[in-house]
Amino acid sequence: MLDLRPVLFSVGVLSAILGLTMLIPAALDAADGNDDWQVFALSALLTLFVATAMMLATGLPPERGMRVRQAFLMTSLSWTLLAAFAALPFSFSGLELSYVDGYFEAVSGLTTTGSTVIVGLEKLPRGLLLWRAMLQWLGGVGIIVVGIAILPFLRVGGMQLFRAESSDRSEKALPRAAQVASAITTIYVTLTLACIAAYWAAGMNFFDAVCHAFATISTGGYANYDSSFAAFDSPLIEWICILFMLLGTVTFTLYVLAARGRPGALWSDAQVRMLLALVLLASLALAAWRLGGEADLGLHQALRSAFFSVVTVVSTTGFVTEDYSAWGGFAMLLFFILLFSGGCTGSTSGGVKLFRFAVLSGAMRRQFFRLTHPHAVHATTFNGVPVPDSVVSAVLGFFFLYGVTVFAVALGLGLLGLDFVTALSGAATAVGNVGPGLGPGIGPSGNFADLPDAAKVLLSFAMLLGRLELFTILVILTPEFWRA
Amino acid sequence: MLDLRPVLFSVGVLSAILGLTMLIPAALDAADGNDDWQVFALSALLTLFVATAMMLATGLPPERGMRVRQAFLMTSLSWTLLAAFAALPFSFSGLELSYVDGYFEAVSGLTTTGSTVIVGLEKLPRGLLLWRAMLQWLGGVGIIVVGIAILPFLRVGGMQLFRAESSDRSEKALPRAAQVASAITTIYVTLTLACIAAYWAAGMNFFDAVCHAFATISTGGYANYDSSFAAFDSPLIEWICILFMLLGTVTFTLYVLAARGRPGALWSDAQVRMLLALVLLASLALAAWRLGGEADLGLHQALRSAFFSVVTVVSTTGFVTEDYSAWGGFAMLLFFILLFSGGCTGSTSGGVKLFRFAVLSGAMRRQFFRLTHPHAVHATTFNGVPVPDSVVSAVLGFFFLYGVTVFAVALGLGLLGLDFVTALSGAATAVGNVGPGLGPGIGPSGNFADLPDAAKVLLSFAMLLGRLELFTILVILTPEFWRA
Repeated sequence: MLDLRPVLFSVGVLSAILGLTMLIPAALDAADGNDDWQVFALSALLTLFVATAMMLATGLPPERGMRVRQAFLMTSLSWTLLAAFAALPFSFSGLELSYVDGYFEAVSGLTTTGSTVIVGLEKLPRGLLLWRAMLQWLGGVGIIVVGIAILPFLRVGGMQLFRAESSDRSEKALPRAAQVASAITTIYVTLTLACIAAYWAAGMNFFDAVCHAFATISTGGYANYDSSFAAFDSPLIEWICILFMLLGTVTFTLYVLAARGRPGALWSDAQVRMLLALVLLASLALAAWRLGGEADLGLHQALRSAFFSVVTVVSTTGFVTEDYSAWGGFAMLLFFILLFSGGCTGSTSGGVKLFRFAVLSGAMRRQFFRLTHPHAVHATTFNGVPVPDSVVSAVLGFFFLYGVTVFAVALGLGLLGLDFVTALSGAATAVGNVGPGLGPGIGPSGNFADLPDAAKVLLSFAMLLGRLELFTILVILTPEFWRA
Repeated sequence: MLDLRPVLFSVGVLSAILGLTMLIPAALDAADGNDDWQVFALSALLTLFVATAMMLATGLPPERGMRVRQAFLMTSLSWTLLAAFAALPFSFSGLELSYVDGYFEAVSGLTTTGSTVIVGLEKLPRGLLLWRAMLQWLGGVGIIVVGIAILPFLRVGGMQLFRAESSDRSEKALPRAAQVASAITTIYVTLTLACIAAYWAAGMNFFDAVCHAFATISTGGYANYDSSFAAFDSPLIEWICILFMLLGTVTFTLYVLAARGRPGALWSDAQVRMLLALVLLASLALAAWRLGGEADLGLHQALRSAFFSVVTVVSTTGFVTEDYSAWGGFAMLLFFILLFSGGCTGSTSGGVKLFRFAVLSGAMRRQFFRLTHPHAVHATTFNGVPVPDSVVSAVLGFFFLYGVTVFAVALGLGLLGLDFVTALSGAATAVGNVGPGLGPGIGPSGNFADLPDAAKVLLSFAMLLGRLELFTILVILTPEFWRA
């Protein structure tokens, strides 16, 4: 029998922490003299009540860490349930958002996707804007810890490649979680403070600097303005944003190594090199394509908007300065493909993740080699280390499942009446936790508000699926999971 | 050193056969009193001249069969070069087609894709119409033999699963080719004759019955009318077409077994069951979707057009009765996904092929199972037989390469100025050897004539790539192939 008590206890603890953080926007609204503080206070009360009930009902904290199936449940349940609590302030507020809208907004925040259903961000009370930014920031640090300390132990989609070797044979799934979490959080807070300072120095007001720094370093993408980063119209702010989005896309353990005196670890990492190469290549191709077609476009403007758009999609942030889906067929295809890439593992970015493409191209090379040299031994390597066949299979399987998931979600959105481009790009942007899709509806200059409720529910599920690397949630839905 | 002589000799023999078949449309045009017979006679002369030169230059026929690399080269070269000869009648004719157009049309014919660049088919001399149909028919029987006798020995994308066990350790790639070819050809001719008879009895004139039977059983899709099968406006003809398209989508070795007294082999085959389930499910979903949205649509009309459209895409034929890309977002997404499926291995259909999805879902189930039962042994099976891990990896790799290829071709088409839907669906339809894409340009009611020349070249390459299961051609482009 599966012991659910440690699962519920842990989720209760996380919910209680979330409930407490609601007091921050409450305080801000109260200081602003805005009655919305009551919304947050009520939400906090409700959340803390349920969270405490969960903790009390399940008794003492778990003594010996979690086993594999408990860890799967805990991870999936915490993201799903935390979003349900986080949605409360949105639906209690004066925005006239339905609970489905609120849940979509909360999931989009916590998964650092950044798709919004709110129109008229400029008129929102500051508490709600801060809450959106905080959800992304919390979701960002949460997913880094999950990606570094939990998924490798659950062997999700080849993530066992990133297991610490000493604990390779442990039956306990989460031996290092707390230790990793503290080192990571230090780095995360430091980067956030640097980003706030840079935005502030570049001309943002302090509140905007805080909110946008939260949404940048978490590669989330919630902005305080309907027009996103176009509202600032500042090249300096955009280049700062590009830099910090990229910093959020890098494996955070590398920063820990760098802080401990091994800065070379950053540059020699295969995923970091792939990330920079991909960004450079795609941005330059895009700038060249636009310069060839638009006579009155300046070189700096072309480079700036190309780098910004490519980095915002590859990092799966989703800030917008221009509607890149209006740049023609090539640009639209390129952005559609980039919706799948993602950044490095153990970062805040979503998508397939670059290490999987590295493993996949290694596997491809090997398959080509074997066709003509069937008896040769030719190992796939990653970062100089041989990749076991089981990891290669898991990565290939992840890729297949990713494709199936995107198509299935797109088909569902089609059934709900969405057009081809909206459905396909909507599915890809949700599973990849990017933010904007393509086309006039949900594209860079659009908004998710007008979608039918069922589509918002489906997209919320897709965002959660993608955020937890598909398997973590889907495995719970298999009958085998529940058999002893 | 790679001995190219047996390769060139074999390609020479195949080219000579193709040259001789050009005399059939020549005779038809001559009988019709159409001067176009000279076009075919000239093309035949040129082809036979080059073919004979190739045979003479390379000396005697190979004595001991081919080795693996020679078989790769022979397969790739024969399809590429035969299309180059087959293009001659198109570009010599009075149609004012460029050689690129002619090559596109010939590749589309031989690969049984069925995308056409010719507008005004009704006005074509009968010789050219017959030539288009013959190319598909020859390409169809050719790919069955390649799929049954060659690809399994080359281990392309998991096709080693279909190797005959006795020859599993042979270094020679093609021990059974001739033997298989004769049994298959008998079945193929029988099915073709039955299809001709059925079309004729249902009201087609004899010439149309022959041409369309050629294009049906080969799942090719070239029609004698710009409006394709809509020209006949006959439910009976459409249902006959549905039946024979499906028959062409089934593994032909199963017919051989059935003819030898084991008809149960057909019904118990996993791919056949998947094919029928997929067709039923997709057609019924589509009919229901349309009946829900279009008030004046009758039940039979909905079922007929749904089954026709689904079977034409799943079988990768590409005949058209209605513009299904105008049926709304859900239909368009469904057809886009079906562009990837394909039918059974060892048939005339293209696409990924159903056995790969069977192996992939088995691998998926195993991966889910392993997440919670890491030490359990849980083999993937196909048709009741365990699938070795190397085959699972090869199949997963094929799937990844297929996705990469479609995206790369789409990106290339985007660079050439095509819009998102045209580029993406054009790439998928070409690699899948289906025929029509989606959208107003190259969709079911469109035509490939207006594309830029470079796009036609790229699509021709994509059709050849897909037809020979990607690896067969791409391996030749790797440097390792040419190293001893």
